[in-house]
Formats: sequence, C-alpha cells, structure tokens
Amino acid sequence: MSAPDYGRAFALWRTAAPDWQAYTHHGFVEGLRRGELPRAAFLHYLRQDYVFLIHFARAWALAAAKADTLAEMQAASATVHALVHHEMPLHVQICAGEGINAAALEATLEAPETLAYTRYVLEAGYSGDSLDLMAALAPCVLGYGEIGARLAGSGGPYAGWIDTYGGAEYQALCRDVGALIDGALDHRLGTDWARVPRFARLTGRFATATRLEVGFWQMGLLGHEDPCAT
Amino acid sequence: MSAPDYGRAFALWRTAAPDWQAYTHHGFVEGLRRGELPRAAFLHYLRQDYVFLIHFARAWALAAAKADTLAEMQAASATVHALVHHEMPLHVQICAGEGINAAALEATLEAPETLAYTRYVLEAGYSGDSLDLMAALAPCVLGYGEIGARLAGSGGPYAGWIDTYGGAEYQALCRDVGALIDGALDHRLGTDWARVPRFARLTGRFATATRLEVGFWQMGLLGHEDPCAT
Amino acid sequence: MSAPDYGRAFALWRTAAPDWQAYTHHGFVEGLRRGELPRAAFLHYLRQDYVFLIHFARAWALAAAKADTLAEMQAASATVHALVHHEMPLHVQICAGEGINAAALEATLEAPETLAYTRYVLEAGYSGDSLDLMAALAPCVLGYGEIGARLAGSGGPYAGWIDTYGGAEYQALCRDVGALIDGALDHRLGTDWARVPRFARLTGRFATATRLEVGFWQMGLLGHEDPCAT
Amino acid sequence: MSAPDYGRAFALWRTAAPDWQAYTHHGFVEGLRRGELPRAAFLHYLRQDYVFLIHFARAWALAAAKADTLAEMQAASATVHALVHHEMPLHVQICAGEGINAAALEATLEAPETLAYTRYVLEAGYSGDSLDLMAALAPCVLGYGEIGARLAGSGGPYAGWIDTYGGAEYQALCRDVGALIDGALDHRLGTDWARVPRFARLTGRFATATRLEVGFWQMGLLGHEDPCAT
Repeated sequence: MSAPDYGRAFALWRTAAPDWQAYTHHGFVEGLRRGELPRAAFLHYLRQDYVFLIHFARAWALAAAKADTLAEMQAASATVHALVHHEMPLHVQICAGEGINAAALEATLEAPETLAYTRYVLEAGYSGDSLDLMAALAPCVLGYGEIGARLAGSGGPYAGWIDTYGGAEYQALCRDVGALIDGALDHRLGTDWARVPRFARLTGRFATATRLEVGFWQMGLLGHEDPCAT
Repeated sequence: MSAPDYGRAFALWRTAAPDWQAYTHHGFVEGLRRGELPRAAFLHYLRQDYVFLIHFARAWALAAAKADTLAEMQAASATVHALVHHEMPLHVQICAGEGINAAALEATLEAPETLAYTRYVLEAGYSGDSLDLMAALAPCVLGYGEIGARLAGSGGPYAGWIDTYGGAEYQALCRDVGALIDGALDHRLGTDWARVPRFARLTGRFATATRLEVGFWQMGLLGHEDPCAT
Repeated sequence: MSAPDYGRAFALWRTAAPDWQAYTHHGFVEGLRRGELPRAAFLHYLRQDYVFLIHFARAWALAAAKADTLAEMQAASATVHALVHHEMPLHVQICAGEGINAAALEATLEAPETLAYTRYVLEAGYSGDSLDLMAALAPCVLGYGEIGARLAGSGGPYAGWIDTYGGAEYQALCRDVGALIDGALDHRLGTDWARVPRFARLTGRFATATRLEVGFWQMGLLGHEDPCAT
Repeated sequence: MSAPDYGRAFALWRTAAPDWQAYTHHGFVEGLRRGELPRAAFLHYLRQDYVFLIHFARAWALAAAKADTLAEMQAASATVHALVHHEMPLHVQICAGEGINAAALEATLEAPETLAYTRYVLEAGYSGDSLDLMAALAPCVLGYGEIGARLAGSGGPYAGWIDTYGGAEYQALCRDVGALIDGALDHRLGTDWARVPRFARLTGRFATATRLEVGFWQMGLLGHEDPCAT
C-alpha cells in the first residue's frame, strides 16, 4: 500500500526518517491489526497515552501562541479545543470502560518513554519556532493517520481504535495538518523550501520524534512485563 | 460605586496598583461614557486594539500551554477559541462598518504603546509561569469589566462598546477569570498566598500592566494628533 | 561618512529600516556629539540604560540557550559574561560617580520606552528562534557601534561614552557580532538567505527594534521634563 | 556515610525522591568505585555525557535568562561560561584521549535516555520559572557531588572521574549551588517555603529528574550491549 497523501513535507520527511517503517509497522501496531495485542499492553498504552495527550494539547497551544498568521492560530487553537474539550474527556470515558477510573488515570506515573517524547516535542517548540513544533508533532498526527489508513477494516477487538484513526474524519484532519505544514513552510522559507538548510534540520526533528514513537510503542508492548524475563 | 467582585486577588491587586484609577477613569473612558470621544480617536484605538487582540490570544494560548491542571487548560483554551474564532472576526466586522477594511486593519503599524503592553504580557508568560501570565493579563480582562460595569447604561454613540463589557455575559466571564486566578493561587501558593513573597511580585506585574493600559488609552486619545499642538 | 562594515545582513537591514537615520542621528546623539546634551537627560538615560542592560543580558543568555552550534553558544555566553560581570558593575560605578547610588539605581522605575524595547527583544527570542533574537538585538549592538564610529574624537563632556563605543575594542565586537549573524543565516537559510521570506521577517524585526531605539533616545531627551512645556 | 550538606532544599528533596539511592548507588557508580566498570560502558557514557553537557549548558543559560536578581544571573552565567569555555573543551580532550575524536563526538546519536533527561530539564525551565529549572538541574549537580564525596579516594582506573567530583573545587560548587537554591526559595516563597504547595511540586521535579538520572546510568551500563542477552 502506498503512503497516504498528506502533503509535500510529509512525503519527504517520512522517506528520510530511518525509523518510519519501525514505527508504523511496530509489533504493537501489528498486534492491533491482528487483534492479538495483549489487553494488559493496550491498557498500559492507554494510560500513558492519556499523559501524552495532556502534553500534546500543551504543544498545540504553544503552536497557537507561536503562529505567524491568524489562519495558523485558528487551526492550532481548534486542535487544542478539540483535544481538551472532546478527545481527553473521551479518553477518560474509554479508560473508565476498561476499569481505569479517572483518579487512577490521573495518578499514572509518566513512563520514561512518555517523558522523552512529550518533552522533546515541547522543548522543540519552546527553543525553536512554530516550524520546529510542527515537524516534531507531525509523526504522531500523520503517523497515526497512515497506520489507521492501513489497518482500516481489520476489525477485531481493537476495531474501535483502528476506526478512529482510519475513519474519514481523522483522515481529513491529516490532510488539513499536512496542508498547514506545507503552507507554513511556503510562508517562511519560500516554495523552494526543500533546498533550504533549515528544512534539513526539520527533517531531523521529524526523524527524532519518529524514533521516540517507536519507543512509545515498545513501552506499551513491554511496559507491563519484565523486558528480560525468559 | 464600589469595585465589582471578581475575587480575592483582584481586590488586592487593584488596590495596590498606583495607576488603577488613572486607567479605569482615563479621559478616553470618560469620552466613551459622555459620548464625546472624537471618532478619529476611537478608530485609532480600534485598529490598535485589533493588533492587541492578536497578541492577547497568543498570551491565552501560552496560558493553556503552561496550565497546571486540565481545568485551567480548558479555561484558557476556551478563551483562545472565543478570541480567534469569534471576537477577532467580530472586530474585523466592526472595523469594516467604520470604513476600515480587512487589508487596512492587517496593515496597521503597531504603535509603541501596543508593542510595550503586548510584549510585556507575553514575555511575563514566557519568562515566568502561568501565575505571571495571569497577573499580567488581569488588568485588561478585569479592568474592562470594571469599566463596563460602571459605564453600563450610559447610552450614546459608544453604547455598543459599553454594553459589550458591561453586559451580563462579559461580567460572568470576569467572575470566572477571577475565580480561575484565585484557584491557581490556592493550588500553587496555598490559601495563605497573600503572605508569600511571590504574590508581591505578581502584584507588581499587575501594576505594570495597569500602567501600560494607561499608555494604551493615551495612545488612543492622542495617537491621531500632535500631542504638543497648541 | 559611509556605514561601518559589520557584515552582509547588517548592510541590508540598516538600509531597509525606515528609522535608521532617525536613530543614529537622533537629537540625543547629536547632543552627545556637540557636548550640549543636558546633564539631567544623560542621567535619566543612564538609569534607564541600567534597566535595559539587565534585560539585554537576559536576551543574550536566551541566545546562548537557543544556539545551534557550540561556537554560537560560546559567543553568546561570552557576551552575557562580559555584561553581568564587567559592564553592569561598571555601569553601577559610573552612576555612582554621577551621584546615583546602587540603591537608587536598583529602584529605577522602568519607563514605558524601556519596557517596550526590552520586552520586544525578549519576546522575539522566546516566541521565535535565535535568528529572531539576533535581528532584534542587532540595532542596539551595531547601531551603538555605528554611532560610536561616527562620533569618535568629538571630545567634550561625553567623550567617555563616545570613546567606549567608538573604540577599537567595541568596533571589533561589532564585527564579530556581524559575522556571528551572517554565519547563523548561512547555517540555517543557506548562503542565498537574502531571498528567503524568513529574511524579510527578520528585516522587519530589525526595523521594529530600530523604531524602539528612537523611542529610547526620545525618552532620554524628554523623560526628565514635561514634553509639552513651552 | 551521611549526606553532604548542600543546603536545606537539597536535604528535603533527596529524602523525598524515591530513586535517590538507586541513582547514587547505581551499578554504574559502583563499577566506577570498584574500578570494574567495562571500558566500553564508560566510553558510551562519555559520548552521551557530551551531548548531555550541551543541553545542560543551555539549561543554565536559560536559568540566567530567567533569573530574578543580578546575583542569580551572575551565578548562572558563570556556570554557563565554565561549561562552554572549560568543561566542554576538556570533555572533548578526554574523549580524544580515549580514541573518540571531535568529529565522532559531534556525530553521537543522542540516546533516548539522554533525550528524556535533557528535554525534561529544559522544558521544565521553559514552561515553568527559574525554581522549576533549579529543581530539575539539582539532581545532576548535587548528586554528582554526593557520589564524588562518597567515592573520593577510591583510586583505580576511574580515579580521574572520581577526583573531579569528589575534589574540593566541585564540592565548593555544590555548596554554592545549594545556597543559590535556598536563596531563590527564600526570595520567592518566603523562609517558610517548605510548607508552600509550590515546593511540593518542585520536590516532584527533583524526583523525576532523579529517576531520569537512573535511566542515564542504565543507558551507560547497557547501551553498548543487548540488554536481554543471556
């Protein structure tokens, strides 16, 4: 299956990221697809993903604060709004359905892999500008889109998760975010941005965030058990 | 008329700010109340206020990024959303009604007084934490509330402006923001926060932002004419 | 007299800044040159300049934090070190010689013009990246160099000030900072950086900071008297 | 052996951090003490520590940018200066002595454990204020002091490393940093700071950074081999 079309920058970044395949075809993802992922691994992931979402919303809020244009500010602010008023409450509800109540969810100890990824993204945003932030946010937003598109229709116990990211609404969001990134690059670096050194650095940001995504899946897969147990 | 009740911190801050009276009873404000403010001054203010709102929305986005709790993040994010999706488009529309089209509005050269105020608030937020940001944002949000409450029912050519800030909706927002600030102080400094040195510094932030509000009115009043003309 | 050679970016920026002449040939500067600047104006300036230097040192520290390379970090850190361990103590000493003791200096109320300029620079640095910071810092560093070079040898009561900035040491620093900026642009935007849209935005940063320098001189000149007195 | 006296906050923080013993008595540390640490592990650590130092210098530069007083600014700036002009060049030299040339050192791929720790510290500084930064920096500065003090005189192949941190100069620095932290707390939260909720959050920052220190040693120990090899 070919890569989904989420714009020019994404096409270049995913090709250049050494761990893109390791991320999008990780054992955790294949476990979701085949329906064979242990429930404990999924629940461990869900709890950490809640912590991740908090910081992810912070990062999008920072993107709104650092936006160059009103259109960028509106796009980033709409994402924050959706995250904190809809997705996070929904996440709380899903976890409750799995027997993890709100108090337990709030008490989650942030795993090192979650710390690494979330702080990398936020620090990229604080120390750099909004392009740094977008490049660091892209692997999550668009990678989940690519995974969702590939897994769509797999069914099984994780069909709910799969359909969220493979569904038309999330796919449209990925195309919008891809267009936002391409527009931001045009606006700042000119349409020939792929040849500006700054772009190579952004490619590095995307690659590092992708590497940290692999660690996040790995944490989901192994975090509930001793990694060296025989 | 007594001060409106927007919470404990506001009551202390407004009393301690040397320029609070100069801000809330400025000639510009009295001109709005009596309906005698020159139209050119109002239009000059409106254009700068548009630039102000852009940075004000950035500052609230930063407050969302730096929030400590989900409730704080939701409150700040709701404010950003309201600003960029409702108030700023409304502002564009009001200006259009006054003969200032969107292109002219976007082309506004930011006045030094606008630069001073907006960057002071944003820098307080970047270099400090969310308490610094709230203390720097409060004079605008809550001062307009106090002015609106005092001017409510004045009628005249500026009744639209007056009723926006004196109206029930804006007054409720002021009480909510006041409660957000008091809650943020309780959460970080304990309920006895007024005796913590940190609070004195926040009082200073509020006082400086108030001083810059006076400059902003002054700019509105004089910006369209030679201040030393006889 | 031709402009001093502080590099490629400076040459473009100073030409593009509408207020460069107003800044470098301001009445305050001419007063220094002719030795006719009222002492009260100079002292008012000195006090505000102390407050300015504190924030200026902060901004260079931020530049060190946001540096891309070890060489950039070393250059920025050396500047901070020189500012806080040498120039600021020296400033305290000069003010003491003028009858302003350390306590009075620390108690200086920051003027709106100082607030505007310092927070503009710091906010550019926090919300943008190190290029934004350098473009916003350049008018002060390099403008004082250009003024110093022009005024060198004027003698008079302000010869101390003039010789500091016109002297070989400060002129060498200006060439170093100019080279740092050009190198940072090469590194991030490629050697053809003048054609990248990002550069136009940096030109805008430089122009705004220049405009705020004019305000700073104006504050020095008028801050000690009623601006509308006849 | 009792804990070294690096001030009041350190005494409370180290007691409250669940992983303090795991950090200061880690297998890596014991390997240094007994002289049994595999050379490959030490070299792996040295390379990552170089990357760490770059970000550590950034964090101290940010502390200078966010300082409240001139004394704090001077202390932080002196640390940055020492790091980028002395310790980092020294580190390059030590690595060269171990056969890792400057190019190889610069080309080090940052390990996830290094990313997690460095970005946690920097993000604490950007999103919070200078207290957050100090609490996140303290486990490294003061923990190395405590380890150095305990290992002093152990001799063996790692005597150079041990004597650096156990030596009088580094121990004096630890006491200075401890005093800087206590002073910063007094200044912001009052002398009764241990009872302010803000302090509990700082204790959490210290505990998280300590946890990430454990991960950093673990990475040093295992990073050069397969962690699950039998």
